[in-house]
Amino acid sequence: MSSVYGNNLKISIFGQSHSSAIGVNIDGLPAGFSINFDELNAFLRRRMPGRGEYATQRREPDEPEFLSGLVDGITCGAPLAAVIRNTDARSSDYGQLWDIPRPSHADYTAYIKYGGARDARGGGAFSGRLTAPLCVAGGICLQLLRREEIHIAAHIAQIGNIADRAFDPVHVGADEMRILKEAFPVLDTDAGGRMRAAIECARQDGDSLGGIVECAAVGMPPGIGEPMFDGIENRLAGILFGIPAVKGVEFGNGFSAAELRGSENNDAFIMRGDAIQTRTNRHGGILGGITSGMPVIFRVAFKPTPSISMKQESVSLSRREEAWLAVTGRHDPCIVPRAVPCVEAAAAIALYDALLKTRAHV
Amino acid sequence: MSSVYGNNLKISIFGQSHSSAIGVNIDGLPAGFSINFDELNAFLRRRMPGRGEYATQRREPDEPEFLSGLVDGITCGAPLAAVIRNTDARSSDYGQLWDIPRPSHADYTAYIKYGGARDARGGGAFSGRLTAPLCVAGGICLQLLRREEIHIAAHIAQIGNIADRAFDPVHVGADEMRILKEAFPVLDTDAGGRMRAAIECARQDGDSLGGIVECAAVGMPPGIGEPMFDGIENRLAGILFGIPAVKGVEFGNGFSAAELRGSENNDAFIMRGDAIQTRTNRHGGILGGITSGMPVIFRVAFKPTPSISMKQESVSLSRREEAWLAVTGRHDPCIVPRAVPCVEAAAAIALYDALLKTRAHV
Amino acid sequence: MSSVYGNNLKISIFGQSHSSAIGVNIDGLPAGFSINFDELNAFLRRRMPGRGEYATQRREPDEPEFLSGLVDGITCGAPLAAVIRNTDARSSDYGQLWDIPRPSHADYTAYIKYGGARDARGGGAFSGRLTAPLCVAGGICLQLLRREEIHIAAHIAQIGNIADRAFDPVHVGADEMRILKEAFPVLDTDAGGRMRAAIECARQDGDSLGGIVECAAVGMPPGIGEPMFDGIENRLAGILFGIPAVKGVEFGNGFSAAELRGSENNDAFIMRGDAIQTRTNRHGGILGGITSGMPVIFRVAFKPTPSISMKQESVSLSRREEAWLAVTGRHDPCIVPRAVPCVEAAAAIALYDALLKTRAHV
Amino acid sequence: MSSVYGNNLKISIFGQSHSSAIGVNIDGLPAGFSINFDELNAFLRRRMPGRGEYATQRREPDEPEFLSGLVDGITCGAPLAAVIRNTDARSSDYGQLWDIPRPSHADYTAYIKYGGARDARGGGAFSGRLTAPLCVAGGICLQLLRREEIHIAAHIAQIGNIADRAFDPVHVGADEMRILKEAFPVLDTDAGGRMRAAIECARQDGDSLGGIVECAAVGMPPGIGEPMFDGIENRLAGILFGIPAVKGVEFGNGFSAAELRGSENNDAFIMRGDAIQTRTNRHGGILGGITSGMPVIFRVAFKPTPSISMKQESVSLSRREEAWLAVTGRHDPCIVPRAVPCVEAAAAIALYDALLKTRAHV
Repeated sequence: MSSVYGNNLKISIFGQSHSSAIGVNIDGLPAGFSINFDELNAFLRRRMPGRGEYATQRREPDEPEFLSGLVDGITCGAPLAAVIRNTDARSSDYGQLWDIPRPSHADYTAYIKYGGARDARGGGAFSGRLTAPLCVAGGICLQLLRREEIHIAAHIAQIGNIADRAFDPVHVGADEMRILKEAFPVLDTDAGGRMRAAIECARQDGDSLGGIVECAAVGMPPGIGEPMFDGIENRLAGILFGIPAVKGVEFGNGFSAAELRGSENNDAFIMRGDAIQTRTNRHGGILGGITSGMPVIFRVAFKPTPSISMKQESVSLSRREEAWLAVTGRHDPCIVPRAVPCVEAAAAIALYDALLKTRAHV
Repeated sequence: MSSVYGNNLKISIFGQSHSSAIGVNIDGLPAGFSINFDELNAFLRRRMPGRGEYATQRREPDEPEFLSGLVDGITCGAPLAAVIRNTDARSSDYGQLWDIPRPSHADYTAYIKYGGARDARGGGAFSGRLTAPLCVAGGICLQLLRREEIHIAAHIAQIGNIADRAFDPVHVGADEMRILKEAFPVLDTDAGGRMRAAIECARQDGDSLGGIVECAAVGMPPGIGEPMFDGIENRLAGILFGIPAVKGVEFGNGFSAAELRGSENNDAFIMRGDAIQTRTNRHGGILGGITSGMPVIFRVAFKPTPSISMKQESVSLSRREEAWLAVTGRHDPCIVPRAVPCVEAAAAIALYDALLKTRAHV
Repeated sequence: MSSVYGNNLKISIFGQSHSSAIGVNIDGLPAGFSINFDELNAFLRRRMPGRGEYATQRREPDEPEFLSGLVDGITCGAPLAAVIRNTDARSSDYGQLWDIPRPSHADYTAYIKYGGARDARGGGAFSGRLTAPLCVAGGICLQLLRREEIHIAAHIAQIGNIADRAFDPVHVGADEMRILKEAFPVLDTDAGGRMRAAIECARQDGDSLGGIVECAAVGMPPGIGEPMFDGIENRLAGILFGIPAVKGVEFGNGFSAAELRGSENNDAFIMRGDAIQTRTNRHGGILGGITSGMPVIFRVAFKPTPSISMKQESVSLSRREEAWLAVTGRHDPCIVPRAVPCVEAAAAIALYDALLKTRAHV
Repeated sequence: MSSVYGNNLKISIFGQSHSSAIGVNIDGLPAGFSINFDELNAFLRRRMPGRGEYATQRREPDEPEFLSGLVDGITCGAPLAAVIRNTDARSSDYGQLWDIPRPSHADYTAYIKYGGARDARGGGAFSGRLTAPLCVAGGICLQLLRREEIHIAAHIAQIGNIADRAFDPVHVGADEMRILKEAFPVLDTDAGGRMRAAIECARQDGDSLGGIVECAAVGMPPGIGEPMFDGIENRLAGILFGIPAVKGVEFGNGFSAAELRGSENNDAFIMRGDAIQTRTNRHGGILGGITSGMPVIFRVAFKPTPSISMKQESVSLSRREEAWLAVTGRHDPCIVPRAVPCVEAAAAIALYDALLKTRAHV
């Protein structure tokens, strides 16, 4: 169950940071869909390491090989499997982590769960590298959604305590979303500059920084999603917490709605031309788990990556005594920029599967 | 899928606010478990309406009738079904909502999804009343977890802008948790008093208030949960967003972790006696989706209930023009106090199911 | 998992033979469907006991009460729950079965699995009575399928060694199927008469008889079902083996295909007017798990009911020594006639869910 | 859903006959298990083509490459993905099948379902070749089950109208099962000789033959499986019908039980030493969906492979008129010998997953 997500569309992910490959099997794609591979590879490059000063220096081509599900680049109805080889793994970097778990990393829980059999190299299956196959599946779903005039984009809403401005929750549009497809996607380039400086500063300190990603899905028709446990919020949260380092998910006004009165938080229904819409969009496009037709808006909190080169207190698992740890090797001081396409990918998978479910019942 | 949750334990909920009954079928309870019905009913009374100045005046006995799964009050291995009759439904209160949807309520999305066939009486299947069967299932799971020395409790962390103090994330204990089993559970009774006053004030204004519930699960053994899509965070979020009005879920430091550096957010591993623990618990007891053995801590944001008696802008669905709405009838000015046991119930179901899954693989 | 079936349509069954009620929760019905309750009750009466010389004398009204999911008899989109009260349970009949399990009944495996907590009264959750809620769900699905010109009917193909003639696998039609809706549905009334005599003979001997049910689904569009584990055969078998006493399922030529050569078993494709069909239908309307557009035909083997009043060898569970058992109480000498609507119901559920899945991907 | 099977153990299969590779992702294997690769490869060779006069001449090494889930050949807890390259695909053999579907093959239903986008080369995802990844997963599960003293073996019970003798359903033992691990596994070598001759005869006629595989699982503890839809019969049937050409599944006496009276079909409980067993085993080791502790015995019917070189009637999909077809290329005249390990593999997966589920609830 751990690596399988979805119902009418089902993805099954595999791989570890230092296994020979990572990949995904995608079951439930429509037949006859012509994947735009250039676009898919461009999307995948957005989460790739080594693209700038703020990312790890590990470089990999990371272009997926498609093993099945395609005939001449067009989906044939059979499950589509894609693998990405791990060519640049330097296993020796991770030696001491076998015995001394990184604070706030899954090193320790993997030890508890899998014992001596665990793959401790590079975080094993808990590595952020596993978001690459997620992005393969999500990148294809993004293309499928676009056929239905549904567009998804995310930006860096916050790094440390520096905030980008938020999407306009009512008027966020496809055009605005297109300009976000960059390595460091922000709406306010000044804020972006300060974020980069903060990341560089953290790097020089051997430290790391957390942040928040805001994501919007524009064009979702109203009526998608089911009440109770299969709502859009349940589905999105169910996949988003599968991205390493995610510690919070909120929709629309989210936690800040808790501070408001109903009269302040309610979104009045209005007519916009012939369409029933809401004047404001504090509900984030979802009411009762079901899309309202307004943009779906949510925010995802990322903790700072636990792998920092500063000296930290930990314990020796073998000697069961306290020990000091200084992580070496290549680590992002801030994973948030690379997490942006991962959030988009996860959202695309969840929303496309929700769309299929609703369509089943029409 | 919408009303079914879980894997090795599976619950299936049914009912609408004004259907003849609501209920739940629970599949996967162990045989031979003696349910403490007094305790279960006491737990259910915690979410009952009509217990105080801040709750709706609708009064119902709400004691479940058990239709199956028991022999002499002891589980027999067969699915346990429980129903609660809807005896106090006053359908006439909801007449105009058929045509004029409440802003920020599921009235509109239900209309889009189910059209003229929808049950608009009292919010239909979107009513908070559906949390009663959730609490039946959760109340039983709470008892099952306690057999394994796992205790769950929640409190009102915030109403409007008045905050309770937080659980001590390291030392929150079963004793402290026991005192919380009250109608208005807070840690700081002064704050509690101010919250009650704020709720009363909102009531008098015909308005409503949102809030935050903080929940802790103490005693979870380390190693429970699976990586990626079946982690404890995914599972908890997947059920918590099924509670009406929930708009955000965060674990440990959650969104505030985004503002921290790794050196500030990481939890050092230490030895406490023979046990490996963490000095702090900003990770909320979950690393890589798997329990660390520290208390599992999370927070749930509730938007203010959209049903307010103040006049609001909406539209007429039939005439497709703007219209004014003033909701009459009985509505909580703040659902957060009654949501506290719902959060506990949801957590108990999710964690008990996670425990079964892990046990399957040992 | 045990009592839950389906994906886009999900049913969850509960109850024991002597619990206060049995029932089902059905999630995923379309909103706005007007259930024909007279027809549904007529369908349910087909599996009711006490309708003839060959059935148990236990009599119950068995009309379901609908607790949710309906407004004025029309589905509203919320899960539909139905319960049937157990009003005629005579628990005293089953005393010795607590200690001495019936040969070839689930008495023993229930004892192993649930121990002293099991509900041994009347077979507990293993009772054929649990097919009543299956028939409620299936009866509704039959009505939904008929909207799409899909008709399902079954007949008694064999009792003991007396065989009815088989459906014409190519030309079985809706008209022919309508005449089958009787208490003792056979195509050849002479064979039917001999079957009844054989059942009466078994009854007088205190013995029981097995049999075979043949079922056809006419009008299934081609292309429904998925390859591999979600094919029509997998789905049908997955639900049919949930009917007590089923020990075999075969499609089209089934086991007899094993004796044929390809040239004898293959069904030539031909044009019938504008339609591509097959001249013969040895494939039972399913190729590669997917409907071909020809009638779906399958056969279900029922073992003779294990509850016979003849003296039988068994063991005492408490004394762990051999013991003799003579079952008293009311038992069908042959459950096959009452199983016919159960097979239709199961097929309707499985095929309707398959239809929804396929529709999701169009 | 189509390619995913299981709950606590979940497999996800991919590939087409002529895609660049086929494979499987296996989620839920225990960590720390040392796979015996020699044994696994020996198992896989049992289903390989080209091992004798009765099999297709297509030759491939078919040794899987393991991409993930292992560290030094030992499972690490992460999903285990294995791929097998398709190195010997001769696509040109299948040209006319694009337009003229083979009678009784999935060519036609694939055309209906996936249209022009289908992969018609070699049967695409409907090819028997997809049983190779099933056997990888099943071969590992066989090793896991053996750790628990559970042994599974199958033999050719019938080819055309030539029958092997059946397993002794009570005394079938691990020793007897070991001798079956051969290319042409039968209990009666004389019958085996006649089967081979019949296959050779069919080959010379350009025809094919069907058959039956009988399978036994010895050592299953009693109490495994759940009532109703998650019984051992449901689970086994649910995976077995995923093997191409399977048209029937029966347990214990199966269809022949339909001809018996209860007094003839019931299995008396007896004491064997301290153990409660049954004197006979007509119930096939399963009562009420739950294992009884007796050997689990079932039979699987395979239709003759539809690919025969004799001239057959079909239609042209493009011209929508009748057309003749003579299949060229390499095809088994009888797939039953190669299906034997596939049945064992499917059974191992289903039973291992059932074991995990039961263990979850202990």
